[in-house]
Amino acid sequence: MKVDLNCDLGESFGAYKIGLDEAVIPYISGANVACGFHAGDPCVMAKTVAMCREHGVRVGAHPGFADLMGFGRRNMNVSPADAKNYIIYQIGALDAFCRACGVKLQHVKPHGALYNMAAKDQALADAIVEGVARVDDSLILLGLSGSCLLEAAKAKGLPCAAEVFADRGYTAAGTLVPRGTPGDLIKDEDEMIARVVRMVRDGVATAVDGTDVPLTAHSVCVHGDGEKAVAFVRRIRSQLEAEGVEIAPLADVIA
Amino acid sequence: MKVDLNCDLGESFGAYKIGLDEAVIPYISGANVACGFHAGDPCVMAKTVAMCREHGVRVGAHPGFADLMGFGRRNMNVSPADAKNYIIYQIGALDAFCRACGVKLQHVKPHGALYNMAAKDQALADAIVEGVARVDDSLILLGLSGSCLLEAAKAKGLPCAAEVFADRGYTAAGTLVPRGTPGDLIKDEDEMIARVVRMVRDGVATAVDGTDVPLTAHSVCVHGDGEKAVAFVRRIRSQLEAEGVEIAPLADVIA
Amino acid sequence: MKVDLNCDLGESFGAYKIGLDEAVIPYISGANVACGFHAGDPCVMAKTVAMCREHGVRVGAHPGFADLMGFGRRNMNVSPADAKNYIIYQIGALDAFCRACGVKLQHVKPHGALYNMAAKDQALADAIVEGVARVDDSLILLGLSGSCLLEAAKAKGLPCAAEVFADRGYTAAGTLVPRGTPGDLIKDEDEMIARVVRMVRDGVATAVDGTDVPLTAHSVCVHGDGEKAVAFVRRIRSQLEAEGVEIAPLADVIA
Amino acid sequence: MKVDLNCDLGESFGAYKIGLDEAVIPYISGANVACGFHAGDPCVMAKTVAMCREHGVRVGAHPGFADLMGFGRRNMNVSPADAKNYIIYQIGALDAFCRACGVKLQHVKPHGALYNMAAKDQALADAIVEGVARVDDSLILLGLSGSCLLEAAKAKGLPCAAEVFADRGYTAAGTLVPRGTPGDLIKDEDEMIARVVRMVRDGVATAVDGTDVPLTAHSVCVHGDGEKAVAFVRRIRSQLEAEGVEIAPLADVIA
Repeated sequence: MKVDLNCDLGESFGAYKIGLDEAVIPYISGANVACGFHAGDPCVMAKTVAMCREHGVRVGAHPGFADLMGFGRRNMNVSPADAKNYIIYQIGALDAFCRACGVKLQHVKPHGALYNMAAKDQALADAIVEGVARVDDSLILLGLSGSCLLEAAKAKGLPCAAEVFADRGYTAAGTLVPRGTPGDLIKDEDEMIARVVRMVRDGVATAVDGTDVPLTAHSVCVHGDGEKAVAFVRRIRSQLEAEGVEIAPLADVIA
Repeated sequence: MKVDLNCDLGESFGAYKIGLDEAVIPYISGANVACGFHAGDPCVMAKTVAMCREHGVRVGAHPGFADLMGFGRRNMNVSPADAKNYIIYQIGALDAFCRACGVKLQHVKPHGALYNMAAKDQALADAIVEGVARVDDSLILLGLSGSCLLEAAKAKGLPCAAEVFADRGYTAAGTLVPRGTPGDLIKDEDEMIARVVRMVRDGVATAVDGTDVPLTAHSVCVHGDGEKAVAFVRRIRSQLEAEGVEIAPLADVIA
Repeated sequence: MKVDLNCDLGESFGAYKIGLDEAVIPYISGANVACGFHAGDPCVMAKTVAMCREHGVRVGAHPGFADLMGFGRRNMNVSPADAKNYIIYQIGALDAFCRACGVKLQHVKPHGALYNMAAKDQALADAIVEGVARVDDSLILLGLSGSCLLEAAKAKGLPCAAEVFADRGYTAAGTLVPRGTPGDLIKDEDEMIARVVRMVRDGVATAVDGTDVPLTAHSVCVHGDGEKAVAFVRRIRSQLEAEGVEIAPLADVIA
Repeated sequence: MKVDLNCDLGESFGAYKIGLDEAVIPYISGANVACGFHAGDPCVMAKTVAMCREHGVRVGAHPGFADLMGFGRRNMNVSPADAKNYIIYQIGALDAFCRACGVKLQHVKPHGALYNMAAKDQALADAIVEGVARVDDSLILLGLSGSCLLEAAKAKGLPCAAEVFADRGYTAAGTLVPRGTPGDLIKDEDEMIARVVRMVRDGVATAVDGTDVPLTAHSVCVHGDGEKAVAFVRRIRSQLEAEGVEIAPLADVIA
């Protein structure tokens, strides 16, 4: 039994540092590297890819909206045709650092508002899949379990993988409980870890209504944005390993 | 006898249109496509690469400084290490559109202030060459005849090609007469064409002091930024062909 | 009887030129000057304000979303608190050019997606009004006749004015017929002019359902983005004057 | 005897936080607030001006080059005419937040590369002074003691003030010892404080060659970019007060 631990890295920009990349990288198997639109810059990208190589962490592109001021977290009414080109651009930019560094780009995970919009908007999801496939149809699209984005990838025949969240509640339909709704967030660390173990090992989670909901968990999304977050990644990794789950690159998980 | 005609294309941005790309593209053999830093955006890049494919025009990356407001024409005190990463980023971004469109990226020509600075600054030139080579060491670096940039490419073993200008005067040393100095600009169209033919066919130009200076002319830089410029490209192409010079892709010229 | 003719000016950016500002400015009474977020840059702003001064055209700020690539035309999920600060920033930037040029900033008209969103989103409209009022509560807010934005201005006691469109259809409720819906656009120039004259002189328009709808027309929005648009502005101005309507600054119209 | 303590504030951007603004603000008398070009954004500006108001700290504009990726620290070959417009734009933007917050903008201090270039380039210095004066000729220009910038202000009749650095060595001519040259940096905290007290109280510093050089010290530049820097500001303030020097707003110091 294998699972990938993915984390957003390389979100610093110029003189601005964000995220404890060096601290979290030993514990993850895949990095979603910002590509200069919502975060990241060419120098940060070069450094982050080199750091991934050094730690044997697989590199993924983390394309977002061109909204540095909003960190790519604000919905933008971008047309699918434009979104496709934004995806191609950002994948290419990151891939060049991979080539320069001698590593192979493994996956693509849209960021923030683009991720959330593509989970529900089929035209946008199709455009993203089309963009990824046109650059390299061996790239794995990493998306929300049960999202339009993964449906679009499957329809197109693009390799894809589903991620789950330790700290989010799920509905009986397998979707995330919307933020601001009761049950949206899991706050107890022990509960988070127990839920992750169950999602990964048994493919099931307790939904907000108490029922069991089946979920695919190829990857668990973790965070490196603070000391506490990093400590949690260490803990979740240990616990998964103690339960006999191997932390492995996404490509191996879905192989 | 062969020569390449290269022209900057894809410099539009969002709602802003610049350049008569559609008008000039039938007459050139290579396009330097802006990569989103000094000009261009992902949608313009996609469209431009598709247009190049349709016309059999080879695609080159045209990386510049991240100064859209100054169109990449203002010198910036960027460190060589940073410049290398800016080059990698931009080449990768454009290359992704080439891959998406089924064409092969042929060359790289730095833009504006980056081009001018790299002609004289060895450390910057080395960094640019290193960046290009790290992404793909079969890319041809196109630069000013006699520049540091071409020297750096040769030293590194990167394929390179020299371009000449129809409208600029040359010193007896083979460098451009600095703008603002007597003899900097050739204004008569007939003279421009005669000079180009001589540079291409005989590898020599009359310098500003009246002596003959040897010059390598793998490519002639032409412009598509107005009706008059396009008419000149048509004329120069006809005249070169009438003189038995074949307009050919850069890769064939230096083969 | 008076009416203002307002036109977006100063939308060029760096090397990019857009709009026939010099051609249209003799025929308008007010300019909405882009403030560097969706279009315009400091040099364009300086030049545009100077041109307004020379032609006796009143200056208004035309703040938009920070989306140059989308020309401010794409909805962005910006919080009202952030939008207020974006408004303050842009008004201040333009006002500095007014002060430097010895003219007084007259009005504020949000641009594109910000304008459209604020027409229907009360919280956003309130935030914009609050931003304008905090900088200078004598500024006139120019908005869509019947919009949330004008309601917010009235509620706050901020001077405001209503604009109408020559080329748009109106519903019986006085709102614009949504784009893409039958009757959204008026295409016949004679009809456009007749409608404008009626809106200005009689305060009424024929709605898409054939009924008469009362409309307030302090200002008519005109365009300078092409030869045809400029010719139409000349025509509409002539016709309004022939009908005894004086083209006057917005401040005089609502006085 | 009075002196101003000035510190760069408001350099955060979007999700990126930089500087311990809240920690350092109780100890300073003037803030140089970033204006959105090299750092800062409208929301950060609003918050920073409000914080200054709360602490009775005077607000200054801190305009820089439009190079967020380089934090405004890289020389750019911007024309004086363009620089003037960049200055006007940024002052206006910040001033709008001052007006919205009910405080008066006190001074202008160029940032980073713009500051350094204007210290030595008379045409650029003149352009900056012209820009400031055109917006509001009661603004105080804060610059390097002995710089072109202050000369330009004096020639134009614009109020100006000279700042000194605790951690930099001075030549016998009163200019800064260039970075990378022996004696460029003072590293001992006690020595820094002794030097500052002497510069402020006696108007003199020991130059790198051991001679005494006269210096005008209306303001001391301090930093809030780390715990250690903030502790030093507390110490320098205490020591100055212990020596009978009052920490006062720049406007009072030069009155």
